[in-house]
Amino acid sequence: MTSARNAVVLLSGGLDSTTTLAIAKTNGFRLFALTFTYGQRHGIEVDAARSIAAKFEVEKHVILPIDLGVFGGSALTDDIPVPKDRCQDEIEEGGIPVTYVPARNTIFLSYALAWAEVLGANDIFIGVNSVDYSGYPDCRPEFIKAFQEMARLATKAGVEDSTLLVINTPLMDWPKKEIIRRGIELGVDYGVTTSCYSPSDSGVACGRCDACVLRLKGFEEAGHKDPIEYQSRPES
Amino acid sequence: MTSARNAVVLLSGGLDSTTTLAIAKTNGFRLFALTFTYGQRHGIEVDAARSIAAKFEVEKHVILPIDLGVFGGSALTDDIPVPKDRCQDEIEEGGIPVTYVPARNTIFLSYALAWAEVLGANDIFIGVNSVDYSGYPDCRPEFIKAFQEMARLATKAGVEDSTLLVINTPLMDWPKKEIIRRGIELGVDYGVTTSCYSPSDSGVACGRCDACVLRLKGFEEAGHKDPIEYQSRPES
Repeated sequence: MTSARNAVVLLSGGLDSTTTLAIAKTNGFRLFALTFTYGQRHGIEVDAARSIAAKFEVEKHVILPIDLGVFGGSALTDDIPVPKDRCQDEIEEGGIPVTYVPARNTIFLSYALAWAEVLGANDIFIGVNSVDYSGYPDCRPEFIKAFQEMARLATKAGVEDSTLLVINTPLMDWPKKEIIRRGIELGVDYGVTTSCYSPSDSGVACGRCDACVLRLKGFEEAGHKDPIEYQSRPES
Repeated sequence: MTSARNAVVLLSGGLDSTTTLAIAKTNGFRLFALTFTYGQRHGIEVDAARSIAAKFEVEKHVILPIDLGVFGGSALTDDIPVPKDRCQDEIEEGGIPVTYVPARNTIFLSYALAWAEVLGANDIFIGVNSVDYSGYPDCRPEFIKAFQEMARLATKAGVEDSTLLVINTPLMDWPKKEIIRRGIELGVDYGVTTSCYSPSDSGVACGRCDACVLRLKGFEEAGHKDPIEYQSRPES
């Protein structure tokens, strides 16, 4: 028998968050999925998130419009070009990329914390990963640990018991190929997920931005074909 | 000569945040004021924040609509009655009140962090207070300390130097009367501030909610008359 514990799962509609949702489900959590629209160029992600939430029969899916563009400072919210055609080494050695959105995961997790408190949920899931590390400071394990410490003091429940809340990051230590293999085992249909930072107007992935490069490499190493369509695929 | 350091100051339009803004200004910071509209009943606060920001000649005032009502769970965002006519002892002993908004300060500070990162600011100011303590978990010094630790790891700057960011809480240890005395010394016009959880449609403070009770008591103890209008004032 599965547990009826509630969990808030951050769901972008991408490969990692979808796999995270599948893992939370297989661990017996009742799923409350939270998706943000934030003036990101890839609004196509939200449609993907909606399909995925329905597929996983989540208890509730909240899609929350938030304005991260108001402060500027990112290629995902501003008119800064998204880098293309970098290989994995270049991505990993290139430092914090222009696609970084200031304090994004802090803001996302803060909203998840608010919902968790209202639901009486002790578990939040986020699909961050430090292996195929694209240089975002708020994907590091030390950040997640510090957020958990803070969150344990931030809520009503934390006043009485400051050990309850857990920020679950099941993908933290997995290379992309392991994420993909595990997701396929759990029946994830990656054909509905989307990762591209710079898709066409109709939502077709570019195949050339950092997110596409890492995704395609992950599928190749996992020995599977990525089921989504690309405008172009790099030669392997 | 004053320093030209940048600071993001959370400004609700209430007594505490306005005094905090005055303190940040007197400390030589260039002020970037951040106000949220979040379906709170007291939208009148935002008009107050606008006047105050103009008065203090802030560099920029961002007013950001965010939806905290989507998750429910608070008298300030839902149709839950705001408690009235509690004396200070009852307020202090009553535990976490229904006016608590889940994870509100966590969310507010997260946005402030995003803006601070874009501005290259190392200082965030928030007017929380643990003395006239109204039972909010996210006003406690241990929460602020934990948020600062997290925030130092959350940003680009934190990757290089995780000691830079400071969450300033100048009012943390002051009783309300001290806050008011200091504000008056610094020339704060409390006539434009508003604290009431349950004002009339035209914005007149009720005089009976926890916020009004604590404010009126603070003015009385400071030996000043509160310049704002009230629907009724408790007998002293």
